[in-house]
Amino acid sequence: MVKLAVACQIGAPSPLLKGRVMTDSLGRRPAAIEAAAVPPRVKPSNYPEPFFSRMSLREKRQLGEFFGLTNFGVNLTRLAPGGESALKHRHSRQDEFVFILAGEPTLVLGDEEIALSAGMCAGFPAGGVAHHLVNRTDRDALYLEVGDRSAGDAASYPVDDLVAALGPDGRWLFSHKDGRPY
Amino acid sequence: MVKLAVACQIGAPSPLLKGRVMTDSLGRRPAAIEAAAVPPRVKPSNYPEPFFSRMSLREKRQLGEFFGLTNFGVNLTRLAPGGESALKHRHSRQDEFVFILAGEPTLVLGDEEIALSAGMCAGFPAGGVAHHLVNRTDRDALYLEVGDRSAGDAASYPVDDLVAALGPDGRWLFSHKDGRPY
Repeated sequence: MVKLAVACQIGAPSPLLKGRVMTDSLGRRPAAIEAAAVPPRVKPSNYPEPFFSRMSLREKRQLGEFFGLTNFGVNLTRLAPGGESALKHRHSRQDEFVFILAGEPTLVLGDEEIALSAGMCAGFPAGGVAHHLVNRTDRDALYLEVGDRSAGDAASYPVDDLVAALGPDGRWLFSHKDGRPY
Repeated sequence: MVKLAVACQIGAPSPLLKGRVMTDSLGRRPAAIEAAAVPPRVKPSNYPEPFFSRMSLREKRQLGEFFGLTNFGVNLTRLAPGGESALKHRHSRQDEFVFILAGEPTLVLGDEEIALSAGMCAGFPAGGVAHHLVNRTDRDALYLEVGDRSAGDAASYPVDDLVAALGPDGRWLFSHKDGRPY
């Protein structure tokens, strides 16, 4: 079920949305939308294998992209039971934030584990403690996640053999910890 | 009622939180928190009068600040009946995003008005159409608002005699449209 607001904002549709049904016949995006009506991201993860497959229980709706935002991203993300939000990681320059809408995901932060629930939030300043969310319950968890797109960002992964660097084109480049590319 | 997660993240408390009860005896911030337990911002608005007084029906909890985020802000904002989110405005460099948690605020976007409700979201790319939320109902509206802190940002106000420029110290400088400072 797709509910669109009646008014539309004039502007070119995001390249990510071209060919989808989210614009009207004049190519206008809606000015507001039911978040659940934004189509899920087609590519479920940017990670190389074997990490890509671990993200199959995660579904992201790119709300910020939908409205053409570029300075930060906002996703509505659903984690099925057994899913994880990302590999355990930390960013060098990107701040991150999550707000729980439903379900009871677990925040793994360094060596600690914190039970989250609807209405709770957590923030992860750049250069902070490695973290991710995991869903150990038997029902979906739903949350908003926000992250900026600071130039020169890098991500490190304390558990997995992975290093990531944000290229000048906005794409992530992944390599092994010994420098070999994936 | 303040519910704190049991685990804490080691780090210096934000200057904005000094003297409040949100850190433990070692000065550690919680790693996650019930958003409603973050204290409201002490200064309700940065606007000069006569605009300052118009923001008295708005209450912001600075969730991003709470966790020490600097690249963007995330506020949990409550608009009482008759309140408005901000003066109708647009930013030159800052992207903005709102996600409605409760209530039915009205999005004023240019000359259009769009009824919002829980689960809906809207995004405002830098340089886009002037906008604000107003609460014309008889109950509170509650929403998350996100905005980045891009250097050199400016805000323009099509209805009010106000111009704002973000200074290098992160403070907003307000003037009349003819250049006189407030």
